[in-house]
Amino acid sequence: MRTDLERFFNPRSIAIIGASQDLDTISGQPLKFLKSHGYRGKLYPVNPRYQEVAGVKCYSSIADVPEVPDLVLILVNAARVADILRECGVKGVPYVIIFTSGFSEMGGEGVTLQRQLTHIAQDHGIGVIGPNCQGMINVADSVFAGFGSVFNADYDPGTVSMVSQSGGFGFSVMNLSSKDGGLPFRQVVTTGNEIGISTLDFIDYYIDDPKTEIIVGYIEGLKDAGRLLEVGNRALDAGKPILMWKVGNTEQGQLAARSHTANLGGEMALYKAAFRQSGIIQVEDIQDVVDYGHAFGCGRLPMGNRLAIITISGGAGILMTDECIACGMRIPKLAPETGEKLRSFVPAYGSLLNPVDVTAAIFNNTELIGLTLQTIVDDPNVDCVAMINASLQGELAAKVAAQIVAGASRTDKPVFICWSARDAVAPEAYAALDAARIPRYKSPVRCGRAIAALSWYAEARRRRERQKQEKALVLTSAAARRTLAERTGDVSEYIAKRVLVDYGIPVTREALAERKDEALAIARSIGYPVALKVQSPDISHKTEARAVRVDIASDGELTAAYDEVLANARAYRKGVRIEGVLVQEMAMDGVEAIVGVTNDPLFGPAVMFGLGGVFAEVLKDVSFRLAPVTGSVAREMVEEITGYPLLAGARGRPPADVDALVDAIVRLSALAVDLKDHIGELDINPLFVFAKGKGVKAADALIRPKTGN
Amino acid sequence: MRTDLERFFNPRSIAIIGASQDLDTISGQPLKFLKSHGYRGKLYPVNPRYQEVAGVKCYSSIADVPEVPDLVLILVNAARVADILRECGVKGVPYVIIFTSGFSEMGGEGVTLQRQLTHIAQDHGIGVIGPNCQGMINVADSVFAGFGSVFNADYDPGTVSMVSQSGGFGFSVMNLSSKDGGLPFRQVVTTGNEIGISTLDFIDYYIDDPKTEIIVGYIEGLKDAGRLLEVGNRALDAGKPILMWKVGNTEQGQLAARSHTANLGGEMALYKAAFRQSGIIQVEDIQDVVDYGHAFGCGRLPMGNRLAIITISGGAGILMTDECIACGMRIPKLAPETGEKLRSFVPAYGSLLNPVDVTAAIFNNTELIGLTLQTIVDDPNVDCVAMINASLQGELAAKVAAQIVAGASRTDKPVFICWSARDAVAPEAYAALDAARIPRYKSPVRCGRAIAALSWYAEARRRRERQKQEKALVLTSAAARRTLAERTGDVSEYIAKRVLVDYGIPVTREALAERKDEALAIARSIGYPVALKVQSPDISHKTEARAVRVDIASDGELTAAYDEVLANARAYRKGVRIEGVLVQEMAMDGVEAIVGVTNDPLFGPAVMFGLGGVFAEVLKDVSFRLAPVTGSVAREMVEEITGYPLLAGARGRPPADVDALVDAIVRLSALAVDLKDHIGELDINPLFVFAKGKGVKAADALIRPKTGN
Repeated sequence: MRTDLERFFNPRSIAIIGASQDLDTISGQPLKFLKSHGYRGKLYPVNPRYQEVAGVKCYSSIADVPEVPDLVLILVNAARVADILRECGVKGVPYVIIFTSGFSEMGGEGVTLQRQLTHIAQDHGIGVIGPNCQGMINVADSVFAGFGSVFNADYDPGTVSMVSQSGGFGFSVMNLSSKDGGLPFRQVVTTGNEIGISTLDFIDYYIDDPKTEIIVGYIEGLKDAGRLLEVGNRALDAGKPILMWKVGNTEQGQLAARSHTANLGGEMALYKAAFRQSGIIQVEDIQDVVDYGHAFGCGRLPMGNRLAIITISGGAGILMTDECIACGMRIPKLAPETGEKLRSFVPAYGSLLNPVDVTAAIFNNTELIGLTLQTIVDDPNVDCVAMINASLQGELAAKVAAQIVAGASRTDKPVFICWSARDAVAPEAYAALDAARIPRYKSPVRCGRAIAALSWYAEARRRRERQKQEKALVLTSAAARRTLAERTGDVSEYIAKRVLVDYGIPVTREALAERKDEALAIARSIGYPVALKVQSPDISHKTEARAVRVDIASDGELTAAYDEVLANARAYRKGVRIEGVLVQEMAMDGVEAIVGVTNDPLFGPAVMFGLGGVFAEVLKDVSFRLAPVTGSVAREMVEEITGYPLLAGARGRPPADVDALVDAIVRLSALAVDLKDHIGELDINPLFVFAKGKGVKAADALIRPKTGN
Repeated sequence: MRTDLERFFNPRSIAIIGASQDLDTISGQPLKFLKSHGYRGKLYPVNPRYQEVAGVKCYSSIADVPEVPDLVLILVNAARVADILRECGVKGVPYVIIFTSGFSEMGGEGVTLQRQLTHIAQDHGIGVIGPNCQGMINVADSVFAGFGSVFNADYDPGTVSMVSQSGGFGFSVMNLSSKDGGLPFRQVVTTGNEIGISTLDFIDYYIDDPKTEIIVGYIEGLKDAGRLLEVGNRALDAGKPILMWKVGNTEQGQLAARSHTANLGGEMALYKAAFRQSGIIQVEDIQDVVDYGHAFGCGRLPMGNRLAIITISGGAGILMTDECIACGMRIPKLAPETGEKLRSFVPAYGSLLNPVDVTAAIFNNTELIGLTLQTIVDDPNVDCVAMINASLQGELAAKVAAQIVAGASRTDKPVFICWSARDAVAPEAYAALDAARIPRYKSPVRCGRAIAALSWYAEARRRRERQKQEKALVLTSAAARRTLAERTGDVSEYIAKRVLVDYGIPVTREALAERKDEALAIARSIGYPVALKVQSPDISHKTEARAVRVDIASDGELTAAYDEVLANARAYRKGVRIEGVLVQEMAMDGVEAIVGVTNDPLFGPAVMFGLGGVFAEVLKDVSFRLAPVTGSVAREMVEEITGYPLLAGARGRPPADVDALVDAIVRLSALAVDLKDHIGELDINPLFVFAKGKGVKAADALIRPKTGN
């Protein structure tokens, strides 16, 4: 597959197969728009019915075109696409956009047709974009290769590049977010069914494109989602923020999944995990794209999440505070010296707390604006500053803007402005801010969200640097691999726990008894009370089968219980295979956690953490990360769930052994990576987390082999 | 207090006290803007220094003005306001706007000054707006009585009226949301510190104003919050939606509160409860005001929350589905006959499921648009319809719009349009939709949110009608009132439970023993195991004082425990008063709930419901309603918490007795109303909810008398 996409975005020549003389039709529009926007390369319409199209010489087939075009646009109907694509292959065409619909998106025959295209593209090494897409706009080089009403407008070139799986909607996002003080786009491509070059291929290209500074993605799903983390981290290292709009959140749970982990880890949970792990910023509406784009356009990142707000309107200050705190920012106390400096010019009815309400009186002397900004920017408790100017307009606005620009130029901390005057009444002021790359917003809520996005990204960069210092734990167990390779059905608790032990995850004291006297001996050596659990590959839900007895306090009780659980197991299912009876210590005065692995066909292995009882099952209060996870990532997983206070020592409990829990998650992650060809799902439920210093213990476990799916 | 606000908004004459000849200053602007916007009444600038201001005869004092003006604007400095206000009172002025700052918002002396104003206004019966506000704009009658850059523009008059506690920000919201396809405003007033006419007074007026159709409020806090429910319900009955922007969500908990209920019921919880109970729609940004305003402008309400989406872009359909489901809408299956009808003209690669993807092919024959709309609107499973037209523009857009207008006119169901072409390229189409009052949005996310707001309001109206059929339970207990009237400190469990029993709330079997032999007799009659709890008005936290023993299984254990708990209680605190030892049955195989009462100084009594353990304390997963609550409201409270599945029968439990729980909440609400002069806080924690048919039982209770605060 081709990924030297420079030739795709900036082709020296383009052939248009199926070009129509009716320039308003779908197959007529690409030639029309390429010409109207001043495409500088050669154009070769191909259609056996015409001598020329729109004044350009027309060819009867791609074979007749006098050179090998860098890019071919295919606009013929679905049935003919395969033949045409083959001809392109024979000709040696590097890039083809297939606009045509009627492939996998319609199911049935369309799926077969699409598979055919995939093979042809692979055989000939063609870089295919589409099918079922709307083409590409390279604003920077005036290449408008596609159709749709959005092509019927001009755009200011800039530094934002976008890839969208949706054609119509993707271009409308670009159109809406580029106009009226919006973002300047560089290159936009829609990818449709993605049989060839994928969203991640394009993002990968944008990361290396020196003129792209901000990357926007609109996705419904990634077939190569397993690359997401790597691509995201590459962008993070390159300092190019990716704004990602992922739609389709309302999926149903995976009903076929047997474990909690797989049930809770729907597709969206894994996307969110990957975004979180690689600093990809999620957006949820068009305005987010614009707002965050402007935020990143400032070219500065805050060193922390502490925001100072300067306002002349108390109400707007409260609003921004609400939004920023909801988005994870802090609104810190200012240093005492800051208050002292401000006191000399802020009116008595203002406020020197954060948000600092300097009141409109400050505009009586616009030089005070610069001084205020400087004073607050210099505060050591402050990482970034937002200033709220209400609806200030006209000449005064211009003076204030000039002071802001001067003040902001003396610091590296990001300075954001909330200013609600409409564009028409403060044009000079706004132009000055824009020229100085000072992000401005009309709504304090939107301003707050944008600052928070910038701050979140800055933290992701710091986290990335910290994690580079950590080494992912690598563990391997040939024994475990052998054990699982033999399995097709669910693995019983005893065997699953032997696998855990191989990776250093502590389990309950226990042993498997094949006879009653063995069981008695094991119980005496562990010490009463004990539990008995029949082990069978045919019984996944031991409790349901009444094949478990707990709290057995004496030899006598054990003797009776042993017979009983075996009888129950045998009655539960005809011909049930019995591996033995597990004799196990009774736990456990600890917090019950659930940790697990789900091995997603697209993403690969991911680890999950949650608290037991209602937390995971009823509240779905769990965290996911793609494996491998380092210690600091495992700690994030533990700390980010809502129920975390229970581990930290809420409700009068002693603090739990979070260090041991983190270690167990890291080991589970290493296990997941080592056994990724063998494990489909894994639950440790519960994992008891004891008081600080007392460790953790897996009390039950379930493994569903990968081949068992 | 005056509340015949017609004269305020449309005064026949206005005096401006402190009018400046410099028309750009704050005290110069009101006269300038009144004149420039063509105010039709008489103007009387008042300033002893001038003969005339801006060509208008100036008077040296309000006494000299030749008539009693309907409205006076006070623009003098804070120290002089009281004298001027008194002069207005003597003159008999009905309405005064005090613009001046420097009162309660700056604390100290300002508070005293403000109190003085309040007294003067009351003595003379003056309707005061402000102080510390920016005045009023009556767009409909061209009365621009205030200052600020927002007054420097013209607005199209309409049917939206607004009241804002914030001056600068309130007007900027009006300005931003009225321009560029925004909302048409009728009357906007800012109220500042509200010593006289309050936000709710204005909303009350708007409800009765025949030309106001939609009401917008921006509030930081209401001093008369106790009226919110009544005003909200009046608006609900009148069919006038209130869009309310409440800021200041990031309050700290009320640290002084002793009960869970009061701790969890911060101010915002009570506002949200009042909004929910009276159908007030919360907004959170300027765009919400515009979007929801347009939604309500359609003049239709859906009969239910089932939305059909027609789209030509799969991506946009997914987005709207995500957003609508997140906001509580349903995207139902369409009836089979709908699919059959659509099949005749939707291309095979489209989708007949909901969202219905008719693909762009439908535009080849625009008459199919009307037919599609009609077919889907007729579906009995559908309450409202959204149609997504991507970026369609120009002539085709106009034809499509005409078809939509025709289709929508044949139904009463709301029809919403998502159309992302910019205004400039589809002016005819957009004008046609606007004229037909068909709400349109550029973003599918915003469109989805707006539909959901309309649907939420429609449900609030239905709920209101249902609740009118229910009678609030009224209970009264003179004994309980007597018991509490004597108390100043916390009430012990035993006495608190006798109060509960008076209102028919079941409690554990128990009796108070004053001697050990009594305790033994009680225990035997209840049956072991029992609990012992020392009762003392001096010990609120019995467990902490080790004054509790549970699981006492025999006479022998009881004898020992009795002495022990008493000794612990006496050691806990010197001179502790002992009421006796409570002997109590051991519960309880049920779900632990917490129910409670908080009696807010502003809102009055409110009831709270949550589940015990981590749910209420760690997750703050609770619901609040202002009392009294009917059975259906109590049921909503139970069903809306996240942990509800636990009561419905999650995790293998039998379904709990929700009916009995609802009854207990209704009784607690009746108690809260009856004892509102006596109870400050009340917790029942836990309230055991047994299996269906088995009822509930309060196992512990705490009352903090109102006078004890």
